[in-house]
Amino acid sequence: MHLSSNTPFEHEDLKMRLVAFVGCLMLAFADVGETIHPREPGWTGSLLVVPMDGSHWTGVKAVAEEMGRRGHKVMVVIPEVSVLLGPGKHYTTRTFPVPYGQQKLDELQARNAEIMDNKQQPLLEKISTRISNIRKFVDFQRATAESLLLNQELVDFLKKQNFDAVLTSPTVPTGAILAYNLSLPAVYMLRGLPCGLDSTATACPNPPSYIPRFFTHYSDRMSFRQRVLNILVSILEPLLCRLIYWSTEDVASRFLQRDVSVVEILQSGALWLLRYDFSLEFPKPLMPNMVLIGGINCAVKRPLIKEVEEFVKGSGEHGIVVFSLGSLVSSMPKEKAAIFFEAFSMIPQRVLWRYTGEMPDNVPENVKLMKWLPQNDLLGHLKARAFITHGGTHGIYEGICHGVPMVMLPLFGDQGDNVHRVATRGVGVILSIHDITVQTLVDALNAVINDSSYKQKMEKLSAIHNDRPIQPLDLAVYWTEFVMRHKGAEHLRPAAHDLNWLQYHSLDVIGFLLFIVLIVTLATFKCCALCWRRCCRKAQKRKED
Amino acid sequence: MHLSSNTPFEHEDLKMRLVAFVGCLMLAFADVGETIHPREPGWTGSLLVVPMDGSHWTGVKAVAEEMGRRGHKVMVVIPEVSVLLGPGKHYTTRTFPVPYGQQKLDELQARNAEIMDNKQQPLLEKISTRISNIRKFVDFQRATAESLLLNQELVDFLKKQNFDAVLTSPTVPTGAILAYNLSLPAVYMLRGLPCGLDSTATACPNPPSYIPRFFTHYSDRMSFRQRVLNILVSILEPLLCRLIYWSTEDVASRFLQRDVSVVEILQSGALWLLRYDFSLEFPKPLMPNMVLIGGINCAVKRPLIKEVEEFVKGSGEHGIVVFSLGSLVSSMPKEKAAIFFEAFSMIPQRVLWRYTGEMPDNVPENVKLMKWLPQNDLLGHLKARAFITHGGTHGIYEGICHGVPMVMLPLFGDQGDNVHRVATRGVGVILSIHDITVQTLVDALNAVINDSSYKQKMEKLSAIHNDRPIQPLDLAVYWTEFVMRHKGAEHLRPAAHDLNWLQYHSLDVIGFLLFIVLIVTLATFKCCALCWRRCCRKAQKRKED
Repeated sequence: MHLSSNTPFEHEDLKMRLVAFVGCLMLAFADVGETIHPREPGWTGSLLVVPMDGSHWTGVKAVAEEMGRRGHKVMVVIPEVSVLLGPGKHYTTRTFPVPYGQQKLDELQARNAEIMDNKQQPLLEKISTRISNIRKFVDFQRATAESLLLNQELVDFLKKQNFDAVLTSPTVPTGAILAYNLSLPAVYMLRGLPCGLDSTATACPNPPSYIPRFFTHYSDRMSFRQRVLNILVSILEPLLCRLIYWSTEDVASRFLQRDVSVVEILQSGALWLLRYDFSLEFPKPLMPNMVLIGGINCAVKRPLIKEVEEFVKGSGEHGIVVFSLGSLVSSMPKEKAAIFFEAFSMIPQRVLWRYTGEMPDNVPENVKLMKWLPQNDLLGHLKARAFITHGGTHGIYEGICHGVPMVMLPLFGDQGDNVHRVATRGVGVILSIHDITVQTLVDALNAVINDSSYKQKMEKLSAIHNDRPIQPLDLAVYWTEFVMRHKGAEHLRPAAHDLNWLQYHSLDVIGFLLFIVLIVTLATFKCCALCWRRCCRKAQKRKED
Repeated sequence: MHLSSNTPFEHEDLKMRLVAFVGCLMLAFADVGETIHPREPGWTGSLLVVPMDGSHWTGVKAVAEEMGRRGHKVMVVIPEVSVLLGPGKHYTTRTFPVPYGQQKLDELQARNAEIMDNKQQPLLEKISTRISNIRKFVDFQRATAESLLLNQELVDFLKKQNFDAVLTSPTVPTGAILAYNLSLPAVYMLRGLPCGLDSTATACPNPPSYIPRFFTHYSDRMSFRQRVLNILVSILEPLLCRLIYWSTEDVASRFLQRDVSVVEILQSGALWLLRYDFSLEFPKPLMPNMVLIGGINCAVKRPLIKEVEEFVKGSGEHGIVVFSLGSLVSSMPKEKAAIFFEAFSMIPQRVLWRYTGEMPDNVPENVKLMKWLPQNDLLGHLKARAFITHGGTHGIYEGICHGVPMVMLPLFGDQGDNVHRVATRGVGVILSIHDITVQTLVDALNAVINDSSYKQKMEKLSAIHNDRPIQPLDLAVYWTEFVMRHKGAEHLRPAAHDLNWLQYHSLDVIGFLLFIVLIVTLATFKCCALCWRRCCRKAQKRKED
């Protein structure tokens, strides 16, 4: 098996020996007082990063870069073939071979765009397509997980590095399984797990009476009918978890050589960095080891390249519209694209669009098509007037951070829930990608740009989101360092993890108390009956006498 | 009615008119652009502080001072007679008359010391003493609350000040009631409410299966018996709340001229600053509007006065023992004090003791008695070896902050629970003030000073406690300012507040679903029965035919 490495060193083994030798020499001659204790200022450690491909990478990369910049040794483990994963300035990468090529990834990505076209599908076919898509995704993740975990050489190599902690996305729990196996404390970064597994794994209370479940599109204020459906969804959640994670559990069990559940693995995580905050999310309970870092990618800003800057500046008083459907969808069917091109020709704003699809004959002059959009930098520009987005968490928070009202076209995953949250705050308009017409799009853009209520509410929301004692990126880095310094965060782990379901809900105690009440009631009843009978007997005797 | 004021101005009315006139002049000539928006840097607002007397004042005062130092107009409203409340450098005070004098306060304080002597009391007498003490405390608080809330002149004056927020201790909810009446957002600072009212008022889940109740002295890992008792206590909590708060509810209802409950008032609070963290507290759920500021008073450090510094320095390698039973207990019965004096004469450390009681004939040379102890500064001294404390939250966190192992003598309130948490961390020894002997005290001191496990564990705990991205005082000030800037923190308020008990626990939905299941089962059963009967009848007919 071939293991490539992005570090500048080629002869791994020789290098390791050399490092070990120099290390021994240094230790032998060093002043003991010079060793920096993990809790002293200036201490640096080493961090293993096992990221997930796609938009999840954005936040994880920001932390990996910042950790490296602060002097920690950061190693990112990534598959040889990926959509977004790649090298950075302040970390090293270690790649591992996978049994698929770029073509397979392109095929999977193309499926994301297909979703815009399947309106005419009958319901059953739609459901079967969805399930087939989930299966394909699960199979793909399984292949990646196996390629990492069952690569003994790589795992042995990582074991030898003596990392202090693992940073990973638990949505695909490969990194979590690896951390579990290496007995390293894990820091998870996520927006939430689709089947409520994050609540289960953190023992975080999650009352269905006011916490809407994933995919329901409900708010925290539900009607009776909605609460009934919300509970039914929460009852079905374990089944969905099973569907999503059974193959991961299978890989994990083979890797760890014993039966293991995903919950057991995720429970062992030291800290949960959650990519949301309550400017958008509905208020709900948190556990001590949950840290909110919503808007983490907003701070990473670079100046626009000259050509783009000029295009943006040329928009004059009308400003620009930023349009992106996320890192996984950059094209759309020709007919669909035509609607957008026509609509854009009817508005005075200039539009910057991440689009790699088929070009029409005449692209309107006010539209600039780009293969990759510096989304956050554009939204942070004074000229930004509106943001057309699919509703991914990163984009939504970038919009809120910079106070840009949105027109939202949810495609899949948590996007439907995200856009619903934005809409309930009155700072965006939801359109359906299936039913979209030139007029609805133009109306929606005109509304969010010209109706001042959207801008005013967005400014208020933005002010709340940006008003925080510490920036999310610094917070994420701080807590990752905390876990490295203290070898975990054991003091934040609730004792609830040691209770089973019955015990946690005190059902055993309630049962016991009810039993006692029953016994006492029966005993009292028996006593009374006995007394009554004796009295009666005495009275009868007296009568007979 | 006489209203005194600690502001340097005497003629309130004249001053107000002058201020108003100057204000109008300034507004008339000011550049409109110079008005600073609450969300702009440099903005300052005005804060009303309604503190509670006793140790609660420590944290509130620190925030009031810091807010004033940062340029906010801070006004603290205090009764004319109090134990600890008083003026500060960076805030103004406004006093109000109360129907009791210093003597009454001294009497109440003397009761606190009496607790050390009533060991011989029979159980029933003990309980009746406790209830009588609670009643006396409640009556006293009621008198103070009435003096503030029913003082129309004072309330009108406060109304006119256009404060941006109220900072107060909700343990005695006078400030909360005032904020509710003035429609001002309230920031609460507390360690917890004795009957679990904080959980109710924040809608914070509080499972009795692993969250020990106040006064139980349990940890988060309870046996079945302990869980049974913990549930029984949690069932009794509403009764305790009634006992503690019925008189406050009465005053509030008269003040607000409608029936109102303490829960309703506390629910309206914008933010809860909680004086604990999970270095000591058992991990449990939090709500978004809860901010942990455990150890807030540890940062407020001053150099020791020369005489004390010399005494401390003179302790040599043995170091010092700091001894205080808190702000409310500074003396003890003569026989009890004799035990301490004798024990102290047997240890090599020097002792600094806050003691105002009767002096023995010969005070040991290594003991320095003081009327008031710079506790935090002494604990922060390199020579500090042990801390003898009653187990109040402030003292405990000062000990943890500076890494000083403790010998603990809990007296009342939450102290029993606090010391139990310290003991489970292995950083302190609990002694009973009733059973204490010279030998047990000397043994305990020798243990925490000379057994290195206490010091090691304490250093680890101290490192965790002090390892935080932002200091608790800054955090408290930040969130108080946040509430002032945004006129509350509505986005952190859970929708759970809009649900009744049945709805919150989804019992109505569960009932409905069970009903549906019942109907479906019955209908199925009926159908089957019908079919069966028909089949039977046909079979019978066929037989008959």
